[in-house]
Amino acid sequence: MTSTGWLGGAAAVATLTFDVDAESPVLAAGARFAHHLSTMSHQAYGPEVGVPRILGMLDELAVPATFFVPGWVARRYPGLTSSIVERGHEVAHHSYAHKAPTSMTGQEERDDFARAMDVFAEQGVEILGHRAAMWGARWQTPQLVAEHGLLYDSSLMADDRPYRIRTAPGDIAELPVHWSLDDWEQYAFLPEPHLGSVIESPVKVLETWRAELDGMRHYGCLFNLCCHPFLSARPGRIMALRRLVEYALECGDVTFMRCGDLARAVLDDEALTARVLPEPPNYP
Amino acid sequence: MTSTGWLGGAAAVATLTFDVDAESPVLAAGARFAHHLSTMSHQAYGPEVGVPRILGMLDELAVPATFFVPGWVARRYPGLTSSIVERGHEVAHHSYAHKAPTSMTGQEERDDFARAMDVFAEQGVEILGHRAAMWGARWQTPQLVAEHGLLYDSSLMADDRPYRIRTAPGDIAELPVHWSLDDWEQYAFLPEPHLGSVIESPVKVLETWRAELDGMRHYGCLFNLCCHPFLSARPGRIMALRRLVEYALECGDVTFMRCGDLARAVLDDEALTARVLPEPPNYP
Amino acid sequence: MTSTGWLGGAAAVATLTFDVDAESPVLAAGARFAHHLSTMSHQAYGPEVGVPRILGMLDELAVPATFFVPGWVARRYPGLTSSIVERGHEVAHHSYAHKAPTSMTGQEERDDFARAMDVFAEQGVEILGHRAAMWGARWQTPQLVAEHGLLYDSSLMADDRPYRIRTAPGDIAELPVHWSLDDWEQYAFLPEPHLGSVIESPVKVLETWRAELDGMRHYGCLFNLCCHPFLSARPGRIMALRRLVEYALECGDVTFMRCGDLARAVLDDEALTARVLPEPPNYP
Amino acid sequence: MTSTGWLGGAAAVATLTFDVDAESPVLAAGARFAHHLSTMSHQAYGPEVGVPRILGMLDELAVPATFFVPGWVARRYPGLTSSIVERGHEVAHHSYAHKAPTSMTGQEERDDFARAMDVFAEQGVEILGHRAAMWGARWQTPQLVAEHGLLYDSSLMADDRPYRIRTAPGDIAELPVHWSLDDWEQYAFLPEPHLGSVIESPVKVLETWRAELDGMRHYGCLFNLCCHPFLSARPGRIMALRRLVEYALECGDVTFMRCGDLARAVLDDEALTARVLPEPPNYP
Repeated sequence: MTSTGWLGGAAAVATLTFDVDAESPVLAAGARFAHHLSTMSHQAYGPEVGVPRILGMLDELAVPATFFVPGWVARRYPGLTSSIVERGHEVAHHSYAHKAPTSMTGQEERDDFARAMDVFAEQGVEILGHRAAMWGARWQTPQLVAEHGLLYDSSLMADDRPYRIRTAPGDIAELPVHWSLDDWEQYAFLPEPHLGSVIESPVKVLETWRAELDGMRHYGCLFNLCCHPFLSARPGRIMALRRLVEYALECGDVTFMRCGDLARAVLDDEALTARVLPEPPNYP
Repeated sequence: MTSTGWLGGAAAVATLTFDVDAESPVLAAGARFAHHLSTMSHQAYGPEVGVPRILGMLDELAVPATFFVPGWVARRYPGLTSSIVERGHEVAHHSYAHKAPTSMTGQEERDDFARAMDVFAEQGVEILGHRAAMWGARWQTPQLVAEHGLLYDSSLMADDRPYRIRTAPGDIAELPVHWSLDDWEQYAFLPEPHLGSVIESPVKVLETWRAELDGMRHYGCLFNLCCHPFLSARPGRIMALRRLVEYALECGDVTFMRCGDLARAVLDDEALTARVLPEPPNYP
Repeated sequence: MTSTGWLGGAAAVATLTFDVDAESPVLAAGARFAHHLSTMSHQAYGPEVGVPRILGMLDELAVPATFFVPGWVARRYPGLTSSIVERGHEVAHHSYAHKAPTSMTGQEERDDFARAMDVFAEQGVEILGHRAAMWGARWQTPQLVAEHGLLYDSSLMADDRPYRIRTAPGDIAELPVHWSLDDWEQYAFLPEPHLGSVIESPVKVLETWRAELDGMRHYGCLFNLCCHPFLSARPGRIMALRRLVEYALECGDVTFMRCGDLARAVLDDEALTARVLPEPPNYP
Repeated sequence: MTSTGWLGGAAAVATLTFDVDAESPVLAAGARFAHHLSTMSHQAYGPEVGVPRILGMLDELAVPATFFVPGWVARRYPGLTSSIVERGHEVAHHSYAHKAPTSMTGQEERDDFARAMDVFAEQGVEILGHRAAMWGARWQTPQLVAEHGLLYDSSLMADDRPYRIRTAPGDIAELPVHWSLDDWEQYAFLPEPHLGSVIESPVKVLETWRAELDGMRHYGCLFNLCCHPFLSARPGRIMALRRLVEYALECGDVTFMRCGDLARAVLDDEALTARVLPEPPNYP
């Protein structure tokens, strides 16, 4: 079940991912927030200021990235997905309305999933993978991913190396995430809806992520970083993110990949045996 | 829509702003707190000890600042606004009662806005701009600002550079704020009403703000810092704030301005096209 | 109203204070917690391990301190107050049951105050001053302090220098406190009752307090530090506290005093005019 | 009552303990979370990835450790306890279902305790000690430990040195814990059930624990570190843990022991007089 073939000789693989949530997580917390101008402007900063700034930085550093976009956001900001794809990056599925699957019925999740696929099809964007809103996947989620013919999911946390999941419609690659490689817990703050507590220094965040990158280089892992443009594109934070990428490049043993490319490498790695998801646990 | 004319050749513009809230945000959270002597004394520290200490520091460093004062506070502390204006700083509108516009009806916001204007008129204080209490602007807020003939608002977050907003009564400048340049998230702590969690070190706060200033010098932004005298005038914290200003002065490429002066520069910058606020988003 | 006479030529005065709350704040949050053995043992650490360790450190550094003890704690740990007084330190009044005055009726506060005085009288402990439980003083609290013939209160926050309060029964000294010089916000953690969030490093706490001490030496203030034996007597934390005291001693311009001695200096300073407490504010 | 015999000449004794909770604390917070795949995968990381990685590190550093395992987890992961014992480490009792004793009736706690003993007996694992789930021991808990013939408990906090508790069925050793030596408060984050706030940097955690270790070497204490494999086996964090152990080894005056071995030393130390637990406090 363990193979390092997917590493392609690197000490670690890094996937820079950006969840372009814009207003959707705030509106999912309460539709009334649509009338809160300050809050809506705080979220609009992501697609309007954050994404162009991030695209510029990625160009300068010549590293590829993956942008997970809710279908609702892709429709609200019509030029968004094409601006990403044109620069050589990947756009991936991040639900339609940014509601956690665990907060919906099974049918509601199916409908939300398909609705986002429709938006991407209308926009001519090829979709290779999926990340559940709020990292709130339920048991049927990997199967949904396979049903739609996607290659990978990126919402689970059972490992810090990619793995293969066997579902009825076929195997998918899982590119695991973790809260400690998410900028939300470090930077997000809103009083209403109440998000976050202390706003951390970019120096601390850089230190934390660099420690994880070094550990992952030691253990041969996937450094799957998740940033939000409305958070991490702020000037002081994007400078820290740039330093992190520069550090990884200086290491000389870290390969940057788009998620879709990594998923193909994982699915092509015949030494990786597939995992069948266990049943939900019986407790107690 | 993008212009760097407002920068006047500087790498970044810094506006030091102080929200002199005194007891008002605590009383807005519950009128019963008026009887909590320890808590009221904690808030009174702002106008009584904090403001004079800040004015002294600004004199020593010879930098201008803007003080956003709720009308209720201006009335409760009669000598406050004149003590600020006499030292060459700007007093600006920060609501009457420090209740978020989003927590009021449209008419209540109008009345609260006008009531504060009346207090400033009685005190002979010229008002050029406005900041919504709790940074809780609603869709009508920029229009209200324009109706009263003010030049600018400073409550939105859709950019980190000033922009021009088109409203029915005329254009105003928006001087955007952000939670990461607010001392409240770093320092505020009260058990009842429950405010804040961990109290951060001034060393960490200085580090965070300096990182943002450096990033803003890189990207050509407005460093619009928001401090509260009851928080940031504490001895250890004002020393850190002084070091931040000294650092900015040493950089040699940061211009300190009062908000009103910056707003004039923004409105005079013909290369800045005006933004029409979008409608509140439809979701989902 | 401002005088530096109380400083006696020092740059700052430091009062080391220890609130020996033991089980009382947890039981005030819910009497059922008396049956939670782990939690009760966590609180008992204060008088049983913490106080002797602190007394040892104070001896070694030859600095005086003040211990605020709830009457309920003094009765539950019979040898506690005498062990403090014998080493030359001061025991002061910290309510009977450690309930905030703002959570009681006026008469309940009177009864609680007197009940603690009775315990101290039984134990033959001279009481010079008072600190409200939870720093939750109400408008009558300073007057109660004066009625009982005490010299000072230490629960308010309107300044960072001592001041004199005029009450009907006579003047008292106020030795102001502040949340940023309290170890509770830095170190306290219990899941039930829920106290605190992140547990901070002693390195950060030392840094924060040293920054405040340096600021206070600049501005001529009272460094009135509040530690809890069940928190700050833990091995790593008391080492940091020791370093803070050593640093203050090395500065050469900080005078350590017991609160009662400082209160006498304040009341003897004729240049300090007395403040009459304002009425509770009318809002809005 | 105080003796340093149990230190065996060392400045401090270190017990590395790992609470292998897996899914149990999340399911104890709500059985519905069994259907949250992302969350279940986050917890499964502990036994599946974390424990093998920790065992590898312990081998490399040649230090012994103790793994506290809920009976439910031992049953769900059949090879878990034997993998630990085979490497020379100790498996200890950590309840059956990871519910705090204080949340159960006395009989429920008895049944839960016995049910875990049955699992360990089935698996042929010798059990020497116990740690209450959530560190939520009640007054009967130490007696239960003695009734089952175990040598020690590790759930109380009345000291930072081991002590002996007298119960009706006989004496046990108490190896005290503390929230500041637990990785949960530093690293745990889940949005639902809501756990934790900010995720701390391993650099800060290492700094905090090293400060405590140094203080404990000064005062002659038990450094009883509690880590959770789903938290502290993440790559960046286990590297920090490794550095902490390496630092302790370099000190040359710290002895690493399994809890059971330390408990025997404590019970053999005749200079340690036994404590009778006091009655639950009467309040007020």
